[in-house]
Parts: sequence; structure tokens; C-alpha cells
Amino acid sequence: MINFFSSNFKLGILGGGQLGKMMLYETRKYDIQTYVLDPNPDAPCKIACNHFEQGSLMDYETVYNFGKKVDVLTFEIETVNIKALADLEKEGKKVFPSAKTLEKIQNKGKQKLFYEDHNIPTAKFRRFSNKAHLTEGITDNKVKLPFVWKSTQGGYDGKGVSIVKSGADLVKLPDVECIAEEMINFKNEIAVIVVRNPQEEIKTYPVVEMEFHPEANQVEYVICPARIDEKIALKAIEVAKNVSTAFEHVGILAVEMFLTQNDEILVNEVAPRPHNSGHYSIEASYTNQFEQHVRAILDLPLGATESKVAGIMVNLVGADGHTGDVVYKNIEKIMAWSGVTPHIYGKKQTRPFRKMGHVTIVHESIEEARIIAEKVKKTIKVISR
Amino acid sequence: MINFFSSNFKLGILGGGQLGKMMLYETRKYDIQTYVLDPNPDAPCKIACNHFEQGSLMDYETVYNFGKKVDVLTFEIETVNIKALADLEKEGKKVFPSAKTLEKIQNKGKQKLFYEDHNIPTAKFRRFSNKAHLTEGITDNKVKLPFVWKSTQGGYDGKGVSIVKSGADLVKLPDVECIAEEMINFKNEIAVIVVRNPQEEIKTYPVVEMEFHPEANQVEYVICPARIDEKIALKAIEVAKNVSTAFEHVGILAVEMFLTQNDEILVNEVAPRPHNSGHYSIEASYTNQFEQHVRAILDLPLGATESKVAGIMVNLVGADGHTGDVVYKNIEKIMAWSGVTPHIYGKKQTRPFRKMGHVTIVHESIEEARIIAEKVKKTIKVISR
Repeated sequence: MINFFSSNFKLGILGGGQLGKMMLYETRKYDIQTYVLDPNPDAPCKIACNHFEQGSLMDYETVYNFGKKVDVLTFEIETVNIKALADLEKEGKKVFPSAKTLEKIQNKGKQKLFYEDHNIPTAKFRRFSNKAHLTEGITDNKVKLPFVWKSTQGGYDGKGVSIVKSGADLVKLPDVECIAEEMINFKNEIAVIVVRNPQEEIKTYPVVEMEFHPEANQVEYVICPARIDEKIALKAIEVAKNVSTAFEHVGILAVEMFLTQNDEILVNEVAPRPHNSGHYSIEASYTNQFEQHVRAILDLPLGATESKVAGIMVNLVGADGHTGDVVYKNIEKIMAWSGVTPHIYGKKQTRPFRKMGHVTIVHESIEEARIIAEKVKKTIKVISR
Repeated sequence: MINFFSSNFKLGILGGGQLGKMMLYETRKYDIQTYVLDPNPDAPCKIACNHFEQGSLMDYETVYNFGKKVDVLTFEIETVNIKALADLEKEGKKVFPSAKTLEKIQNKGKQKLFYEDHNIPTAKFRRFSNKAHLTEGITDNKVKLPFVWKSTQGGYDGKGVSIVKSGADLVKLPDVECIAEEMINFKNEIAVIVVRNPQEEIKTYPVVEMEFHPEANQVEYVICPARIDEKIALKAIEVAKNVSTAFEHVGILAVEMFLTQNDEILVNEVAPRPHNSGHYSIEASYTNQFEQHVRAILDLPLGATESKVAGIMVNLVGADGHTGDVVYKNIEKIMAWSGVTPHIYGKKQTRPFRKMGHVTIVHESIEEARIIAEKVKKTIKVISR
């Protein structure tokens, strides 16, 4: 048994953003030493880790040298240098999730092919190496409008995704490797957080539901548990477990899925790390996703994934038309309501639609939580001074 | 409205031990800048605050100069230089709890006199300025054996408290200012965490119960909610509120009380800060005591004090006969049980009976939690390598 607690053991984290910051609450709780690498000298992780290093996550040398200093290496963002991870593993370093797993997920085209190869239900798609090939595919009727366009690389938080309905939409797309995916007329977008450790112990969190704004086509609330049929929930959990096992994933894996009008489950995409759809777990679950990730990658026993209470998460994004020093307007109003917890990621500057934080609403009753969540959404504003 | 979040606002904390460390989880969550002062260069708060300063908490100049750098000043330990706090307040600095409040609490003799003056029920006592006067009091039959001896200054975690049954016990006592208190044959030792903000908004947490080892006369479990009669619980909450109001306290106040064989409530002592008896709140409550303290001293609305689930706390103290680099033996065993969360304070060296951490056990059923708590207590050992 390795001694992780108040010892010389070192956990390395690639990426020092809000996900890393929330992971550090847990490493602090366990007094596990941490090293963090991030290109931003003012990254949210800068304090609360034991050692912060500024550097590129995509640079082979930087990642390799950083990895040499730690005992176990993980990441809180997928865009890292995989070759460096693979070489570190060859030298016996523990990297979780593994380079092999990340390699299958990082490129969205490969990720989709992986689903096909492993009989994991997913929306129909075609992969194109560049824009000319995509255009050719449309001309040849291999791809029909409308479709969902996704850049295979570097897509994150809605960036790198477009709905193409017309030639005009097509013109606007960048010339990159991409996939064209069948548009799914889904009933619900749902997600399941899966956790798996190196001993292949596996657990799932309850299904969460993304509730969209009726007009803006934007996720407004992540709701746990999802208000869906129990049988469908069990099916979604089965699919999510299969995905984690197929990827031989270690750590937290967020599996985003569509529930179609015919109650089919289709895997949309995965994130091999703690994820927005699991933030509710900090306040609602017996073991939150960040603690769970740390447990999994250190091969410690997994914690209980059940909820103590219902949870709803609302993202705090920068208001349109506001750029500059951030102000969380009316935060003191929402803090007066029972079960409301704001999380501030620590970015000093707001920009339109920048992810600045989130708010969790917990309550014994999911209906009550939903009412409070709507009040929260309407009250707090992320503006500039 | 002051902008506390991701701003230039600075909160100062006197003391950088485990209580400060847990408070920093909350200031990080809200991205509130923190300055911490502690004499130990390796204090648990060293990382996760924005600025750490090594220095004496009892030195006037050190505390005064530290206080000048921050906007609001609080403490996580009572043994700080009160004169410096008072002078900072005179100059307009916000100090919570105030110097005036702390002054009434820091000296246990003054604290007891305060209870008498404010009709707060407490065990009978006499104050003595030194050992000779105490001996005289016994000779003159003003104090009857057995009694509880308490040093008026610097008592903390059982230090500075003795039960005097004989002349031999008396001989061992140090020559300091003290109180001799009537021994209470109590049914239960209970505590109520009260929170109060500068607007005099006040809230209380449920009554917790300290369960003692049947032989060792040592608290084994802090149990929330206390397994006592509802009427008595309400009475204890009333008493605790009165204590907080009488002290004009701002922040978290832990009120420790005896429940006598006749169902009387007697105040034993208070701690004007987050306290061991409120640690369960991190996992069990809607708002934990550390977040609540931060809310109170910043004059933000208070959070809900209700519990999501039942909670039991077990202290992790260094095992007898072990001194040196700490090992948490069997920690991986207790982590496998549902609802069990260890907290490691980050002290590298263990010593017999040193407070090294605590474990919280949460469960829907308090009976189940109690069973698991006993397994935890019997399984984990804080030893040296």
C-alpha cells in the first residue's frame, strides 16, 4: 500500500483550470501533494497546489519533464501531448487515464469510429480530412443537410460544433478535419458519470438531464436525477458502463447521450475527466466527482455515488456585452436562499459567454430545487465593473 | 455592497491550523483573497491562502501590522493579541468576532463571570488568582472536593483541565490563575453551533451529542442530531442563542453544554470560531460551519443550517507510543465504506494524542451511521512509520 497521505507521494495534474481547482479541494482534504502544469501563470490552480509550473500542455518536452517529477499523472483537459504521456508510461510512470485511452477520445473522428467498432450506439456520421472532402461528400449526397458539423480536434464547450442547414452555413466553416453527423431529434440530452479504477472496479452516478432553454437551444440546467423513466435510466447506465469498459478508462468519464424520440440511447461524446455534468455532486452526492477521480487514479476504493439530496447545476457565464473586471451581480441575493451554493472559478476578467463559475441548488425535493434554480438563473448576472 | 469575489478584497485569518485550512476550502470556492498569519512556517494553511506570513499571534506589532494589510480580520484560535485587535478596530478595521467579544471569552474566569452576570445557566464555580488562594479556598471549605480545576488562560483541547479528587491531585496543579468548578454528574454533553452576522441575523445548527468511551472518559463520537428529547433540544438551542446574543458574537460560536440528570442545561464553555463539534457539517449540512463563518463575518446572508443526512464525527489522534512520520494505517479500508470521509490535517509528524485529522460518517439513518462509526474507530490507526 502506497502512503499517499501527508507523505512524499506526488500527484501531477496537467491543466490548472476550474476542474483542477476543484480537484485540489480534495487533494488538500487528503493532504496529497500536487504538481500542476498550465500555460496561464494566473491559472485558478496556482494556489492550493504544492508546486505550480507554467508551461505548454502540448509541448512534448514540457509535459515529459513535468511527468518525470511526479508519481501519478492525470489531466483535467484533453488537449495535452499524448506522445509524452505514452513515453512516460513506457518508462513505468502511472498515467491515468492512460495515453492509449486518451488517444481514442481526443480526436472526435477516432472517438466515433471507436463507438462503431465496439457496437456502442451513436448517431450516424462520416469523417472528412478537410473541407474540400466534406463539400464533395455533400455534392455526392453522402451527407444530407441539415447535419451537425464537428471539428475532430480541440472542440471544447460548444466550440468546434455547428449546425449546417445551408450552403451559407457551410461557407463559414473552417478548413479542418471534421465529422458530419446526422441531426438527432432528441427528447432529452442526458449524461452518466462513470468511475473506474485500475482494478476495474466500476461505479456510476445517477443519470442527469440537461434541460434546454425553450428558445435559445442552450443548456440551462443540469438536473440530478434525470426526470426520465426508470427503465431508460438503467439502459443509459448500462451503455455508459460499456463505454468506460471499452475505453479501459481509469478515473472519471462523463458519457453524454441523446435519448431519441423512440427511447433509443445514442452516445454523443465523452469527457475523460471530471465534467460540468457532475458538478452537482459536490453538494448532492456522498462522494463528489473530484474526490472520486482522485480515489480512482490512486487505486483507492471508490466512494458511494448515490445522492443525499436532489441537485441542479446552473452555469455562470459572462453576460453578453460585458468585458473586464468581473462582478457577480446579486450574488448576495441568491446566497440567501436555502441550498444555494455559488462556485467562483477565480477568473478576474469576464467576457461574453466565458465560463466563470456555477451555482448548485440542492433540496430534498427536485421540484422545489427546480423552482429555486429558475430564480437563481434570473437573478445572478456576471457583468463587468 | 462590497465585491468580495475575484476582487481585491482581502480576508485576514489569525492562525493557520486545521480550522483555517478547512476555512480556505470555502474562500477558494468563493475566490476570496486570504492572508494567513501563523508562527509555524509549515502550518496546514501555508498553501491555499494567497499570502502566508510567519509570525507570533501573541505579539502586538506582528498582529497589528498583519491586520493593517487586510479588509476584514478573523481568527481560528483564541490565543491572539487582543490589544492589537482592539486598536485595529479603533482605526476602523472590521474584526470579527470583535476584540470586545474575544476578551470576554479568552479568559475562562471572565467567561464564567459573564455567564453569571447574564443569567446564563452554568456550573457553580470560584475564581482564584493563584494556587495559594485556591488552597486557601479549599482549607476554608469554600471549595469542596472533588471539583473541576481549569486554568483560565490557554486551555485548549483538554489541556488546562483537571479533576481534583485529593490533596495529591492538588499538588500536581500548576501555579496559575484558575477556576474551581462544581463537578456535574451529566447525562449528556451536548453542543450547539450558533452563527450570527453583524446585522444580528442568527441561526443555529441542530444539537449534537458527544458520546464518551464507557471507560476512558474521552469523547469518541460527535453525533448529529443528538439522540435526546425534542423539548430539551429546543431548550439547548434557546440557551445557545442567548449566549451568542449576550456576547454580541459575530461568526460561528460553538456552545458546549451539559445536560444534567434533572434535564437542566448548563453552559460549559464556548469557542468563538468553527469547532470540532461542527466538523460533521462539511458532509452532512446544507451549509458547513466554515462557509457559514465566512458568510457571517463578511455580512453575507447566512446559509441553511439543516442537515441533509445524519452525521457522526470521529477524531483521528496519534496513537500512544508512536512519534514520527505519520501513517494512516487502514485508511483504504475505511474509505471503502459508504459515506466515510477522512480529513487529513497535513501534519507530517504524529505524536501520542496529537489531533491529526477526523473522519465523518454520513448516512440517512443515524443508527447505521453509528455502526459504521464504530467500525471506523476500531479500524483506522494513526501511527508512525
